[in-house]
Amino acid sequence: MMGLMMDRPLLTTEILKHAVRNYRNTEIVTRTVEGPIHRYTIGDSAKRIAKLANALKAMGVTPGDRIGVMGMNTYRQFEMYYAVGGISAVLHTINPRLGPDNAAFVINHAENDYLFYDTVFAPLVAALQPKLETVKQYIALTDADHADDAVSGALTYEELIADHSDIVEWPEFDENTAVAMCYTSGTTGDPKGVVYSHRALVLQSFAACLPTAMSMVEGDTFLPVVPMFHVNAWNTPYSCLMIGVNQVFPGPRLDGEGLYEMLDQEKVTFSAGVPTVWLGLLDYLEKTGKKLPHLKKGLCGGAALPEALIRGFEKYDVELQQGWGMTEMSPIGTVNVLPPHLKALPIDERIPHQLKAGRALPFVDMRLVDSVGHILACDGECEGHLQVRGPWIVKEYYKATEPTLTADDWFDTGDVAIIDPDGYLQITDRAKDVIKTGGEWVSSIDIENAAMLHEGVAQAGVIGVPHPVWQERPLLVIVKRAGYDPTAEEIQEFLKTRLHKMAWPDAIEFVKNIPVGATGKILKTELRKQFKDYELPG
Amino acid sequence: MMGLMMDRPLLTTEILKHAVRNYRNTEIVTRTVEGPIHRYTIGDSAKRIAKLANALKAMGVTPGDRIGVMGMNTYRQFEMYYAVGGISAVLHTINPRLGPDNAAFVINHAENDYLFYDTVFAPLVAALQPKLETVKQYIALTDADHADDAVSGALTYEELIADHSDIVEWPEFDENTAVAMCYTSGTTGDPKGVVYSHRALVLQSFAACLPTAMSMVEGDTFLPVVPMFHVNAWNTPYSCLMIGVNQVFPGPRLDGEGLYEMLDQEKVTFSAGVPTVWLGLLDYLEKTGKKLPHLKKGLCGGAALPEALIRGFEKYDVELQQGWGMTEMSPIGTVNVLPPHLKALPIDERIPHQLKAGRALPFVDMRLVDSVGHILACDGECEGHLQVRGPWIVKEYYKATEPTLTADDWFDTGDVAIIDPDGYLQITDRAKDVIKTGGEWVSSIDIENAAMLHEGVAQAGVIGVPHPVWQERPLLVIVKRAGYDPTAEEIQEFLKTRLHKMAWPDAIEFVKNIPVGATGKILKTELRKQFKDYELPG
Repeated sequence: MMGLMMDRPLLTTEILKHAVRNYRNTEIVTRTVEGPIHRYTIGDSAKRIAKLANALKAMGVTPGDRIGVMGMNTYRQFEMYYAVGGISAVLHTINPRLGPDNAAFVINHAENDYLFYDTVFAPLVAALQPKLETVKQYIALTDADHADDAVSGALTYEELIADHSDIVEWPEFDENTAVAMCYTSGTTGDPKGVVYSHRALVLQSFAACLPTAMSMVEGDTFLPVVPMFHVNAWNTPYSCLMIGVNQVFPGPRLDGEGLYEMLDQEKVTFSAGVPTVWLGLLDYLEKTGKKLPHLKKGLCGGAALPEALIRGFEKYDVELQQGWGMTEMSPIGTVNVLPPHLKALPIDERIPHQLKAGRALPFVDMRLVDSVGHILACDGECEGHLQVRGPWIVKEYYKATEPTLTADDWFDTGDVAIIDPDGYLQITDRAKDVIKTGGEWVSSIDIENAAMLHEGVAQAGVIGVPHPVWQERPLLVIVKRAGYDPTAEEIQEFLKTRLHKMAWPDAIEFVKNIPVGATGKILKTELRKQFKDYELPG
Repeated sequence: MMGLMMDRPLLTTEILKHAVRNYRNTEIVTRTVEGPIHRYTIGDSAKRIAKLANALKAMGVTPGDRIGVMGMNTYRQFEMYYAVGGISAVLHTINPRLGPDNAAFVINHAENDYLFYDTVFAPLVAALQPKLETVKQYIALTDADHADDAVSGALTYEELIADHSDIVEWPEFDENTAVAMCYTSGTTGDPKGVVYSHRALVLQSFAACLPTAMSMVEGDTFLPVVPMFHVNAWNTPYSCLMIGVNQVFPGPRLDGEGLYEMLDQEKVTFSAGVPTVWLGLLDYLEKTGKKLPHLKKGLCGGAALPEALIRGFEKYDVELQQGWGMTEMSPIGTVNVLPPHLKALPIDERIPHQLKAGRALPFVDMRLVDSVGHILACDGECEGHLQVRGPWIVKEYYKATEPTLTADDWFDTGDVAIIDPDGYLQITDRAKDVIKTGGEWVSSIDIENAAMLHEGVAQAGVIGVPHPVWQERPLLVIVKRAGYDPTAEEIQEFLKTRLHKMAWPDAIEFVKNIPVGATGKILKTELRKQFKDYELPG
């Protein structure tokens, strides 16, 4: 027997309409690429979103067209999020740090007819132009006064929308229609495209706004350091509108000082970014003695949240919450919001809980399987391959030539993890980065996290190196913190009290820098190349 | 172009699974119909829910079967919510206050094969038995020791589930499948059945858990006074499990003292009920001098929240939030959670905002239309018929013989309302209760609310009485508060400073009590009968 409820589709435009009705004066502030601060309200933005939607239709954009954008976090890219999806076209957010070959690949693979770009990326776009097979029109995210001629034949965004009506009747269509796409910055092989549906992003927005997830409230002011070109800035352009949160877009200045200025001036209460960004901000605060009295909380994802960072920000009354997700998961899978009984614990008892990746959002199923596919217990001890399923998780990569899911329709995350009986996920490693030594698995991340606790360590990367007896043994690669000069022996001693014996690295090497990928994660593949012929002592 | 996300259905069992994984130790406490306090966890409840699901299947329940339940708020009815829907049968919650004729009508109309009931309703069920055409089996919500033989051939719930496994593999099916149904306690005509889908209740659960809606958080303890037989206790059996909120079921004791005991002993932080219930509790607190230091917030719906109640509870540090909804809306449409800038206002400036019904949940569309169907502005001034649409709003009554919706697929709520530019809804009256006087609409509710501010008034009801010149004029009917003896002249004087002149009642009558319906609302139809031949003075 079927229910007798209205068949109303879950479209992202409904989030915009909800915000206009209820939060029209909520602010959106941008440090523009051009320089000045731009400031408007949700009510203002809706009018420009309508103008853009009308301009796109006038330009010939039809449902299903993929529109590329390579931009900073600004109000213009925010407008594109709603306008493009709203007319049932598909916004392809492109990571400018993919490198020219990959960038050309994804634009051609997605068959983008239009490419919007911030002027800071004009040289990159100009270099790409000869390789791009489908782009009919380039549009710089600026106005005529700030146009440059690096990209041949480019229009500007402001000219494009200027003469169009600020009223639009949003169409209604199937909620499973594509709204956006993003390619994974895979470390091997070609990037793979993930195509988000309206339904998936709406459902994730609901889940992200739960008090057990992002835990923002109306009236908060949110600054996304996580880029809008990287999995929808963790969904925040949608979730902020769902509950009336002010947004501050940092534009091109993502260094410690640049972020501090926006966080401070705009009284930001909540932010989100990868550990590297938080580390840069913490360094800036420590160095300058400045404070951020308005900032209450931050979401940290993309890589494990180091203990030193939690403790560091706690001194400034900022609570860092760990989250975990993937491009393939729209991206949020888990968030670590401690319940009152854990939050009340003394810091040393509380931190082990905060170091976990958190609990799954409703409708995200997680399971652990061993190497032969047996399902393992979520008992806080069994370690296995993490597989997931849920309404905002990928079913199939764009133009996939092989199955994306397991035979029984779960997505294998490529992570190795433990789940405890209270549902807390702990990512122990990437499956391919686990060090397999003497029949056991040693987590490279555990060693990195322990090393990061040493005050002399700025960055730490661990890879497995072949060993005649143990198959593999860990090599720890370190970037020293400015002003410190730790020795290998000191670090070894430091680690001995923090790691079980199997995990003590066999060797430590110091380097000037460790390569990181487009999303700020350490590139283990590059580290492995660099230490390809490394011979362990003894 | 379609998105490439997994096709995972939104089923209520996923909420249960989420709760078991993440909140297994969260408590569910019941004051049982039998007397003692029953106490268990979500983990325990899931096992009994599985036993019940297995028992139902063994008894022959198949997908689509409608299972009736006439019960108090207890853990057993809570278990039925998840078990019945989980096997894709449909839980028909029956309001025992419908009266015997209507109760028989709805059970027959829904074609219930099974009827579960609390033993307090055994005499009612026994009296219904001869009229029930489809019920094959009666099951008392108790154990063998507390069975009585009023209902012939009845089993007990505990005997039914005793021998079944506490493990079940929940089936997966279309999210639009029916999960529950509830009949409106309409004041005219036969009750009408509303059939909820899994999708509708899951989406409403997400929306209800937003910080802009119920505003509960993990670790809160919630006591639903609103009955589980009345539109799913405002969705709370689902929303509490979505975010890890403890539940306290008050069973049969809903008077001021009975509620106080449970609120106090169980350190309840959040409750929900109709104004009458809150009034009873406030009277009890005032009379006894007792306090409720743990109670922070309450949701008040079902009828307009009187100002006196907001002010009364504010003295006890309890914030009453107004909500508005309907059986046809699953039921939540709006909740009034004040944003920080309004919350910070001094009480006299804040109260006018709190007296509104709040802002719509995301995906609830509201519009105002005039008597000829023109759409009116949401400008805080235009008053019109309130129409709604959204994914948890009725499309068609069960076995409807005429269209449920307007020609363009909106549901007409039967309410008259104003919506302000910030999205706040203000229900001014039921369309049929509006007093049409000299070409103007006067809200009967406005007059009632103003009268309720007088300390000598316990209850107030207003109806329109025919008038030779003005078509209709208001008659105010009052129940005096115990210990007070106001005169009609005093009340008239009191109202003159609070209402515009058109709304001053032409007459005031004092009565011993005012008839209320199954859900605690004043029965204007009864009041009209009582004053059928009333002649206004002059």
